Amino acid sequence: MKLQRTLALSLAATSLAGTLAACSAGAATPAAEPSVQTLSSQTSPAQKAPKYVFLFIGDGMSYPQFQAASDYLGAMADTNNDDILDGNVNLSFMDFPVAGSAVTYDSTSFCPDSASTATSISTGYKTYSGTINMDETATVAYETIAEKLREQFGWKIGVISSVNLNHATPAAFYAHQASRGNYYEIGEELVASGFEYFAGGGLLKPTGSAKDKTSLYDLAAQSGYQVVMTQAEAEAVTAGPVLIIDEHLADSDAFAYENDRTEDMWALSDYVKKGIEVLDNDTGFFMMVEGGKIDWACHANDAGSTIADTIALSDAVEEAVAFAKQHPDETLILVTGDHETGGLTIGYSGTDYDTFLTNLSNQKISYAKYDSNYVAGYKENNTSFEDVMKDVEALFGLKLSGAEDDKLVLTDYEVQKLKDAYAATMDPDRAKADPANQAEYVLYGTYEPLSVTITHLLNNKSGINFSSYAHTGLPVAVFAQGAGQDLFGGSYDNTQIYHKLADLLDVK
Amino acid sequence: MKLQRTLALSLAATSLAGTLAACSAGAATPAAEPSVQTLSSQTSPAQKAPKYVFLFIGDGMSYPQFQAASDYLGAMADTNNDDILDGNVNLSFMDFPVAGSAVTYDSTSFCPDSASTATSISTGYKTYSGTINMDETATVAYETIAEKLREQFGWKIGVISSVNLNHATPAAFYAHQASRGNYYEIGEELVASGFEYFAGGGLLKPTGSAKDKTSLYDLAAQSGYQVVMTQAEAEAVTAGPVLIIDEHLADSDAFAYENDRTEDMWALSDYVKKGIEVLDNDTGFFMMVEGGKIDWACHANDAGSTIADTIALSDAVEEAVAFAKQHPDETLILVTGDHETGGLTIGYSGTDYDTFLTNLSNQKISYAKYDSNYVAGYKENNTSFEDVMKDVEALFGLKLSGAEDDKLVLTDYEVQKLKDAYAATMDPDRAKADPANQAEYVLYGTYEPLSVTITHLLNNKSGINFSSYAHTGLPVAVFAQGAGQDLFGGSYDNTQIYHKLADLLDVK
Repeated sequence: MKLQRTLALSLAATSLAGTLAACSAGAATPAAEPSVQTLSSQTSPAQKAPKYVFLFIGDGMSYPQFQAASDYLGAMADTNNDDILDGNVNLSFMDFPVAGSAVTYDSTSFCPDSASTATSISTGYKTYSGTINMDETATVAYETIAEKLREQFGWKIGVISSVNLNHATPAAFYAHQASRGNYYEIGEELVASGFEYFAGGGLLKPTGSAKDKTSLYDLAAQSGYQVVMTQAEAEAVTAGPVLIIDEHLADSDAFAYENDRTEDMWALSDYVKKGIEVLDNDTGFFMMVEGGKIDWACHANDAGSTIADTIALSDAVEEAVAFAKQHPDETLILVTGDHETGGLTIGYSGTDYDTFLTNLSNQKISYAKYDSNYVAGYKENNTSFEDVMKDVEALFGLKLSGAEDDKLVLTDYEVQKLKDAYAATMDPDRAKADPANQAEYVLYGTYEPLSVTITHLLNNKSGINFSSYAHTGLPVAVFAQGAGQDLFGGSYDNTQIYHKLADLLDVK
Repeated sequence: MKLQRTLALSLAATSLAGTLAACSAGAATPAAEPSVQTLSSQTSPAQKAPKYVFLFIGDGMSYPQFQAASDYLGAMADTNNDDILDGNVNLSFMDFPVAGSAVTYDSTSFCPDSASTATSISTGYKTYSGTINMDETATVAYETIAEKLREQFGWKIGVISSVNLNHATPAAFYAHQASRGNYYEIGEELVASGFEYFAGGGLLKPTGSAKDKTSLYDLAAQSGYQVVMTQAEAEAVTAGPVLIIDEHLADSDAFAYENDRTEDMWALSDYVKKGIEVLDNDTGFFMMVEGGKIDWACHANDAGSTIADTIALSDAVEEAVAFAKQHPDETLILVTGDHETGGLTIGYSGTDYDTFLTNLSNQKISYAKYDSNYVAGYKENNTSFEDVMKDVEALFGLKLSGAEDDKLVLTDYEVQKLKDAYAATMDPDRAKADPANQAEYVLYGTYEPLSVTITHLLNNKSGINFSSYAHTGLPVAVFAQGAGQDLFGGSYDNTQIYHKLADLLDVK
């Protein structure tokens, strides 16, 4: 099994002018029809077709993510002290009547990436990791379900993401690029898509890698998009085409983690609600909503932030459920993930059969905000370990001493891990994380040693563990409610999500 | 969330004479009807009822176990060198038309045990970890689906396990005990069950904890069971009631791991085939088949043995599929797990997005057989690390030197881990594994340091990781094929497996 991520990434440099030329401004069209893959259908033509379709994708969200969030809510609610565990509290979509599962490998690996997996969902094709809606030779572009619905039926299209709107998952509904890293080119395709509603995090490299190109925001405005950068303006929006960038951008110009969001800031659910307002029409609409920071939190092995962002996705789904109540026979809601991230497990080798999930409620901040608002200062001021521990206790609950039954008191073994990580973080000469340095890489990945060790310790003391800083090969769940829901039961390949939708909606 | 495993285990000592008195010899009856729980039904009465029901339980088998086995088969088959990953090869049950998922928490923990989860599947009730078919007060016994089918309809019943026949999972179909550790009492219930076909590993504590009681095998013979201890005799069996103990017992009197099984030894599938021969009749039968060593291999973090035993379960399912082809409208086959074990992930922090699953084909032996056939000798003979490494290379493929692109050559970091583990294994004064010694416990659990480190290293070099030595809280899949299959789609609690079956079969 020779894996070829390298190839896909190296193709990033290739000019795709030829292929892109085949894509009209309004809706991209494949340069050529693929000849190899069979567009097999397992669906019955007798299914009732919806005209309002919501597709929620929890990036990095598989069974461990929503079950951990659900178990956390159950643990927090189980206050009756009867020594009988009351169990989990279902997230909104866990109560959907249909639940299937999808296998996620891509043409590169059993641990696939978001570009290829979103390509499978939006076009029905496998491709290399890092590739967006193009084949493995990077010469054939695939038209997406969103483009087809717009082109063939005149549906309005919405794309929402809690991370950058030209990041892999949202891009997979409107762009066609050999590399997910072609941010500017992806942004150009966004502008050319004609989709009615974009809302999310800021565009990456808006003036290109060399910062010498016309701003994508200017291009969007020139193409007729209302470009909205404040929440007040967003509130006033009633119609598209509109490109809304969240006012309170955090790490890498994405939404703040749900753990860091304040009451006055819009949540993912607010953007879904606004999207419904903009897209609602008698012909039909398709809305893709990505909970992108579930993935980012799992990469960083931050269980508290993972759970909070998974619950935020569940809240966003409830907006669609509320809309579906008004249009029960015409609405389909799908909730899935693109792949699992982090190898999250409810269980840890140090805690055997026990979990202590309520410990996670002590986490007041994401690892990322802790990095920017605290760790940067520690480095500048050479803050002592003792002073760092005051913040750690206030923000994560972990403490050096306390009552004997306090599950948040660090053991000597754990204190030593934290001191080692503190030393690594404070060492100005420390080499950047290097996979060749296995001991450190397994401990810290590419993250700030202090921060990732804090979340590792809090995770473990809560009975949670991670096994990777990357994606894993676990299948993902596919929850379905509404018109055509029955198609989505069973176990199938992730490319079938597209085929089932396409058959149901009769797109060609 | 206060977890009460201790309570359940301490109840083990309590005499349950009162409760057991309520259980007749032929079929156990609840001492009292439970008043609290609602036997809710989500099923339609119009479902077609089968008269032959197979229930396969992969102990510790959730999505990671069967997907890893399936990915391994895919990796081994992907030999066309076209730099495009061909993906996984489905196990038999992954092609079943219906696939649901079940949540597994019990009354003690989100990381439940096999006794309580099998109780949920066989009776529809949650209970404490360690408890078999009794409520949390250990005063109410629950009748099982197998007992009800025998009593109400005269169906023949078969119970097969690759581990001990009085272990938790098989016990949960015929016994009622506050503690799974009451092996002798469980054995007495086996003898009294009247079930037609038992086949599996040897009974634990057949003469009681003090070895002063009449052998359970003698009791079985006195009750009319043909007690069979050799494969030749087993081959000759044509009718029940029969109690077959595998001739080639391995660790803890269970079947050998599939990795250690030789061609001449019966596989789990052979016992299913024989079971069908014994049970087949016009009235109906119910057969529970446990793949118990999947769990044991996952506890030990032995991915190679996990995969081999998962494939063995898939092979056993094929015997049921062959029977169903003869009785397509009258047969239901369910394949599920009771819980996940080990926090197995397809992905590892040291290998990022890559897997190298074919590395696992170098493993020629289970950790358990390596322990008994090699490590015991190392201790006796004070074998040098260099000599140990000769066996490690021959049996697991891991080596100290080799070609630069050889993925099985250990790095300095890995060699140090192995040397540390070797030193721990060879240290005659080493204290038995103690959770209070966190550093060692996380590294080795309760296992032989050398053996578990070898499998950890081979797992990791294959892109596989484990996060625990215990069970985890991941939901399990429920695959269904045949009459009534549609009931088993969707996402539900594991108690619903019982309720769906009971509704379908109209048992009271």
